[in-house]
Amino acid sequence: MTPAQSLTYARSHQSQFLADLLEFLRFPSVSAQPQHAPDVKRCASWLADHLRRVGLDDVAIIPTAGSPIVYAQWTQLPDRPTVLIYGHYDVQPADDADTWRSPPFDPTVHRGAVYARGASDDKGQMFTHVKALQAHLEAKRSLPVNVKCIFEGEEEVGSTHLASFLERNQEALRSDVALMSDTQMLADRPAIVYALRGALNLELEVQGPSRELHSGLFGGAIHNPIEALSEMIARLHTLDGRVAIPHFYDQVRLWSEKERVDMAHSGPSDEQILREAGGAFRWGERNYSLYERTTIRPTLTVNGISGGYHGPGTKAVIPSHATAKLSFRLVPDQDPLEIERQFRRYIADITPSTIRSIVRTNSYAQPVLTDRRHRAMRAAALAYARGFGEMPVYVRSGGTIPVVGLLQEKFGIPTVLMGFASPNDQRHGSDEKLNLDSYYKGIEVSIWFFSIIGKNLGVKADFPYESSESKLSQ
Amino acid sequence: MTPAQSLTYARSHQSQFLADLLEFLRFPSVSAQPQHAPDVKRCASWLADHLRRVGLDDVAIIPTAGSPIVYAQWTQLPDRPTVLIYGHYDVQPADDADTWRSPPFDPTVHRGAVYARGASDDKGQMFTHVKALQAHLEAKRSLPVNVKCIFEGEEEVGSTHLASFLERNQEALRSDVALMSDTQMLADRPAIVYALRGALNLELEVQGPSRELHSGLFGGAIHNPIEALSEMIARLHTLDGRVAIPHFYDQVRLWSEKERVDMAHSGPSDEQILREAGGAFRWGERNYSLYERTTIRPTLTVNGISGGYHGPGTKAVIPSHATAKLSFRLVPDQDPLEIERQFRRYIADITPSTIRSIVRTNSYAQPVLTDRRHRAMRAAALAYARGFGEMPVYVRSGGTIPVVGLLQEKFGIPTVLMGFASPNDQRHGSDEKLNLDSYYKGIEVSIWFFSIIGKNLGVKADFPYESSESKLSQ
Repeated sequence: MTPAQSLTYARSHQSQFLADLLEFLRFPSVSAQPQHAPDVKRCASWLADHLRRVGLDDVAIIPTAGSPIVYAQWTQLPDRPTVLIYGHYDVQPADDADTWRSPPFDPTVHRGAVYARGASDDKGQMFTHVKALQAHLEAKRSLPVNVKCIFEGEEEVGSTHLASFLERNQEALRSDVALMSDTQMLADRPAIVYALRGALNLELEVQGPSRELHSGLFGGAIHNPIEALSEMIARLHTLDGRVAIPHFYDQVRLWSEKERVDMAHSGPSDEQILREAGGAFRWGERNYSLYERTTIRPTLTVNGISGGYHGPGTKAVIPSHATAKLSFRLVPDQDPLEIERQFRRYIADITPSTIRSIVRTNSYAQPVLTDRRHRAMRAAALAYARGFGEMPVYVRSGGTIPVVGLLQEKFGIPTVLMGFASPNDQRHGSDEKLNLDSYYKGIEVSIWFFSIIGKNLGVKADFPYESSESKLSQ
Repeated sequence: MTPAQSLTYARSHQSQFLADLLEFLRFPSVSAQPQHAPDVKRCASWLADHLRRVGLDDVAIIPTAGSPIVYAQWTQLPDRPTVLIYGHYDVQPADDADTWRSPPFDPTVHRGAVYARGASDDKGQMFTHVKALQAHLEAKRSLPVNVKCIFEGEEEVGSTHLASFLERNQEALRSDVALMSDTQMLADRPAIVYALRGALNLELEVQGPSRELHSGLFGGAIHNPIEALSEMIARLHTLDGRVAIPHFYDQVRLWSEKERVDMAHSGPSDEQILREAGGAFRWGERNYSLYERTTIRPTLTVNGISGGYHGPGTKAVIPSHATAKLSFRLVPDQDPLEIERQFRRYIADITPSTIRSIVRTNSYAQPVLTDRRHRAMRAAALAYARGFGEMPVYVRSGGTIPVVGLLQEKFGIPTVLMGFASPNDQRHGSDEKLNLDSYYKGIEVSIWFFSIIGKNLGVKADFPYESSESKLSQ
């Protein structure tokens, strides 16, 4: 049974599916900025209404201490497997709106892509699955599988309240496999991500004088918090780009020569990564390719720094404090909590006696590694072959999706990460976009995936696609 | 002839003199911020009207490419000396208004002080001279000296257009001595500043990738501009607090043991400076007192730093650039232009090959040293003794007033720097204030100064106060 009717429905409703996405993208659902909390709530409410119209059951807006979770399910086939669909409707800040070619929350279709904050991260990608469900339900009044949908509003701030929600609803949420699209393709080749880095997000604040001082009158006699912070940041890395914190690399898993050769074949080249990085120069740990540096090696990045006066002109001050936002990306078998202890110990060691320092932990997430031979992973490969017209590559991502680690931990199930975004989609940057071709193909891949999974998973192992892993990872 | 009638007038009009100051302080005449350009213009216009009402002649608002200069004079006594009065009506930014106890541009009288941006720097202090002129003119329909007033609107941004104004009007502005109050007392003792540090204000921008990147996807492969900037800032000072730029100290004048002992007697103690610094810790060049570090030693301060995301929460980015604002304070015989060359050369040397750096020069000013034995300095000491009831100390300041160097250069005249601000007046900080007692006493000192100068300067050397310098500097 091919999902012919569902595919036909999807193809003949592309303009409607696009219009729905544009509506979804209009909400400035920025979870990091308190002033957008009402927008986040309105977006959740719109999404819940939309899921009801699509035909899902038990739609609910579940409040948390932060942004609400939007839940929906369709579980009318007790003998079929259940897919847990995850996505997030919150988006990154777009405070740099003046650097966008079109306003971030006024979605604009231009040269075959939709431009808006959230277009690819993650509203556009999560909508491929919503629209696939809609196509099945409209075409057949039924789905080929059971589904449980969790659409989160705090992914961009570390999924703060998701763990306790999963914990509380462990029984109700039980599923066979999780499906998520919040990753990207390898150039224009479809890609399934099987590894994610973990994260540890921190703030380091350095405090000097109790109030801002005149730098003419006091310059030379007082340790400037900006200078002290800079001096401390300079000590976070060695000259050759390694993290300088003692024991930081102790638990980093080393990979076989075979795995590294496989990675070199399947992953992006240094040149490809530098091109995607907009002409930046190569940097970092020696003896690793850039793909390895951003996937199997951990890293520490300063995401922001602020202190003193940074308006136009000159202001002669020594500020009372300066702050940096830092994030670690961690790999198996590093434990975020152990890294946090190491970091705090190291900061205490390198804080000069002439100032005070404070470390605040914002959030953390476990690194993830999924078995490429799991049959859901193979079903996904087949769905790509049918829906996209091309076999996917299996790749590692340097990014972090906290929920993937949580699902592994709470439910013991793997997550299939189908990426439909392009590397140049500017996720987290200005002019974020999603190619319309990827959106429509993504919907077809998802339609196929539900059909294939519905027939096979949890029934028996006569999986239709049985290519060897080495062939898949080409 | 004592200025009895003028003093009587001033004493009986204190509440009017305060009301006038409050009105002056209401203008947010922030020269550094383009959005306040109209406020600067309105303030200049108000000031010109006020000077006309005070009774000065030839009041003019002289436009420049930046903020206008307000000029006024009274030159009706050809045989008497001429005092050039300088002040500035522009103020520091007050973008940190939420840290103020009362709004910075809503002047508030509280516990014997007026709180407002500009209260002591410099509107309140320059007004002591305006009100002294008013008292003389109201009481006697005449002044004891000729005066030429230059009130500038760009002091806080480096007096950009003042030099060319002085150049163009060298003949018309010819005077015997300059008078200015933009400095502070030593605790509650009146103080005359005889040395100022020069300045060199710069921006250092570090550029990485051409656009903001996702720090999960690229972290570890790209040199982060914030980290590169921090690493470069860390290399601006040695571990013992000296500026690390080669040849930076080559032209720094060394002082005799006698001068240093004099300074130790007349200047503030380390403890006094640390108390004024709001509980900060001692830092900087070894073998120098904090007073010496902030006056006879040059310094380099980072006034501000900014890069990446610094809103609430977390944003996983590698920014495309990061910027620091830096200011040198220079001493005799350092040349700001030579120091600029040294800085640019050093930055080029320490810029890693993995990023690009740009240096922008905002402004600079020469260091100043005035002969303490000049008779105008002694006239000022006597005026303090009469008007304030106490002899002043002669002190060095770590601050910079560009015009003092310009006046010395263009007119060959010394500037008498009468400080009426207190060290805890928060010049450049939140809750800037001026004590009302200092304002009223300042007016009387100024009344006395004009009378003493009018009788003596340029006539003959029978100066009434002839104490030895060593006694004065006690």
